[in-house]
Amino acid sequence: MPNPTAAILVIGDEILSGRTRDANLHYLAGELTRVGIDLTEARVVPDRTGAIVAAVNALRAGHDHVFTSGGIGPTHDDITSDAIAQAFGVPISVRGDARAILQAHYDRSGIVLNEARLRMARVPDGATLIDNPVSAAPGFTLGNVHVMAGVPDIFRAMVASVLPTLTGGRPVLSQTLRVMKGEGTIAAPLAALAAEFDDLTFGSYPFVRDGAYGSNLVVRGQDAGRLSAAMMRMVATFGPGAE
Amino acid sequence: MPNPTAAILVIGDEILSGRTRDANLHYLAGELTRVGIDLTEARVVPDRTGAIVAAVNALRAGHDHVFTSGGIGPTHDDITSDAIAQAFGVPISVRGDARAILQAHYDRSGIVLNEARLRMARVPDGATLIDNPVSAAPGFTLGNVHVMAGVPDIFRAMVASVLPTLTGGRPVLSQTLRVMKGEGTIAAPLAALAAEFDDLTFGSYPFVRDGAYGSNLVVRGQDAGRLSAAMMRMVATFGPGAE
Repeated sequence: MPNPTAAILVIGDEILSGRTRDANLHYLAGELTRVGIDLTEARVVPDRTGAIVAAVNALRAGHDHVFTSGGIGPTHDDITSDAIAQAFGVPISVRGDARAILQAHYDRSGIVLNEARLRMARVPDGATLIDNPVSAAPGFTLGNVHVMAGVPDIFRAMVASVLPTLTGGRPVLSQTLRVMKGEGTIAAPLAALAAEFDDLTFGSYPFVRDGAYGSNLVVRGQDAGRLSAAMMRMVATFGPGAE
Repeated sequence: MPNPTAAILVIGDEILSGRTRDANLHYLAGELTRVGIDLTEARVVPDRTGAIVAAVNALRAGHDHVFTSGGIGPTHDDITSDAIAQAFGVPISVRGDARAILQAHYDRSGIVLNEARLRMARVPDGATLIDNPVSAAPGFTLGNVHVMAGVPDIFRAMVASVLPTLTGGRPVLSQTLRVMKGEGTIAAPLAALAAEFDDLTFGSYPFVRDGAYGSNLVVRGQDAGRLSAAMMRMVATFGPGAE
């Protein structure tokens, strides 16, 4: 059975303007690989309702899971929750359990749960809350869409809350042979190995070190025994790995 | 007149598996902002022809420019050039001028221009070459799609080759006020400022420092005078910036 697939939708003008470098795609990619869910697409869109709605609807139709990052805070530019409700065609309002979580959190800190903070309790009808152990304000899951904060610490905590609830597959394992040969040299024998081990995926990633060309040869697959067999053939073909 | 828009398509299994953290999106975002081209979407797809073709065709229809990153090297997993030709419905073959560039480069290094390296001279009919001062193998522009290498040094060099050929708009300027107040506190007055300066865009980006909540308040727009006016109002409202 093939692994479940996933997409991530990163929402935020600050990523597309170059102000902020996104870290959540890379983090989620590693976590999903670990549990056997294949991340097969990523998109970044600005803080515009139309763009978010279109991307969410395209991605949730094409993948088993969609993870969104960003736009669920208390300020006027946090429009993700409303856009998700619109994408699903469901109402959105302040929900009692989400409000209670915020109230308890702000009571402990002696902060008033004002109108802006209360926006973070707005949840589309039919959603399940995602626990936020960092700053209380919850994310939510609606259908196959998991809506999470963009701040990396909170995103990571929410991923840790969600992943145990999902059914993973067989993790994709990988091994890397680092050789001090350029891609043009290793291309033909690598293609032959890829054809021979056609249940595995072979990738080649060039680098330059001290002016010399090298390649990281990566083989990926679900069967550890096959991976080891392919690695032995790679070593026999290209020599032992370089430092 | 609104600025031209752009999208970036990052191609590569290694990004989606979590093996490699993409750096090209962030770099291109900053460069485009500088020349007044608005990056309004980014996507990442795996090394699969169908996924590349579908993404290229969606993005080139919706944006003035599309920049791709990755998959134009000599190994079997480098399938971007052929996918671009397929997306445009044009033939692809080894082209004389591209071959001559490679031949001269490898002659200087005493390396044989073998079949694998010759793959890097395959260019779709009707394309214009993009200069690669780092490692010779060119990128190309076909229609509004600029096809570039994924290795960050080469990607940057190709961006430097392409950008001067494009017509930019008015650069989007930004100013940031860093305040040690949480988003829930600044949300209402910030929304009022955003409504007052409706020709500008206001963003709020929370952070935690030494356990205290702060916000980076960012105002963006094309008119430096209006930006300064907005910043003066922000300082009057929230106080001078924190370190």
